[in-house]
Amino acid sequence: MAQASSNKMFLKVPKLTGKSPSSYTSNMNSGKYFDDLSVGDTFETGGITLTEGAIIDFALTHDPQPFHVNRVAATESIFGGIIASGFQTIALTFRLFRDTGVLTGTNMGGHGMDEVRWLAPVFPGDTLHASVTVEVLTPSRSKPDRGTVRFRYRTYNQNDVKVLSMTMDHVMARPK
Amino acid sequence: MAQASSNKMFLKVPKLTGKSPSSYTSNMNSGKYFDDLSVGDTFETGGITLTEGAIIDFALTHDPQPFHVNRVAATESIFGGIIASGFQTIALTFRLFRDTGVLTGTNMGGHGMDEVRWLAPVFPGDTLHASVTVEVLTPSRSKPDRGTVRFRYRTYNQNDVKVLSMTMDHVMARPK
Repeated sequence: MAQASSNKMFLKVPKLTGKSPSSYTSNMNSGKYFDDLSVGDTFETGGITLTEGAIIDFALTHDPQPFHVNRVAATESIFGGIIASGFQTIALTFRLFRDTGVLTGTNMGGHGMDEVRWLAPVFPGDTLHASVTVEVLTPSRSKPDRGTVRFRYRTYNQNDVKVLSMTMDHVMARPK
Repeated sequence: MAQASSNKMFLKVPKLTGKSPSSYTSNMNSGKYFDDLSVGDTFETGGITLTEGAIIDFALTHDPQPFHVNRVAATESIFGGIIASGFQTIALTFRLFRDTGVLTGTNMGGHGMDEVRWLAPVFPGDTLHASVTVEVLTPSRSKPDRGTVRFRYRTYNQNDVKVLSMTMDHVMARPK
């Protein structure tokens, strides 16, 4: 996600001529437009298994606290073992939603997040999936080509324990 | 950051015998305890330069949208070029704060974040630093060994443009 403020349109009309290397990766806007969405619409993502290696690799760069990178020290932590960085859980939850295709070519960036709550630890071997619901739709007053969609993200592990809840405001394109 | 809910103490009393591989990495609690902090205390972090490679590498795994991974497509986006994923900005901001040492050995995890705002795009080559201020101190009622500290994070680029603002609730240890 990224802040969206400029006036330039994100998407030009797709021209699938095959001449541009971007044609097949960015201009195929198969995602939902702002106007395709209704409050209450819910999207279920696929799943991803977090290995201990993935957890430690992420944490070494972004969050190298003992309970994320050190198996010995982590046994002495309140978690009893290594757990995933909360930042990794957030980013992978977004990745899972991105992979549904809802945002493909129509998401123009993001304003921010609210009510981010890490509700339960994520341990090595846990398999996460998410459920994403449209909470608020706000058309832009000044820019008729876009609107803001507040999505509620809920992430669960393989035992249906909710590990993360958050809202995120996406800027979504409107058809011309 | 990670959710902190168990009753087990995070830190045992450091025993620097050199016998445990965790001794020198996790039990040297040189950080601030809950009681060392006052509302208004502000910590300035070091800086980090985001290369285009680091931006694309992060986004390929966590946020593979065209304006994060595709230089050609990104020129057609509202940003005019590749920008960093907002999740990367958040995680690196936390890493910068972690590197101040304030949290070392005394941070027991996190509850969540609020008011996360991506205020300006982060471009390849930008150098970020952050300022982190204590906003609220809430001792735990049930667990005398800890309290919750709400930190306000503000992240700036090399031109002192604020690119990110957010609050994060950390669980911090109290001395016995």
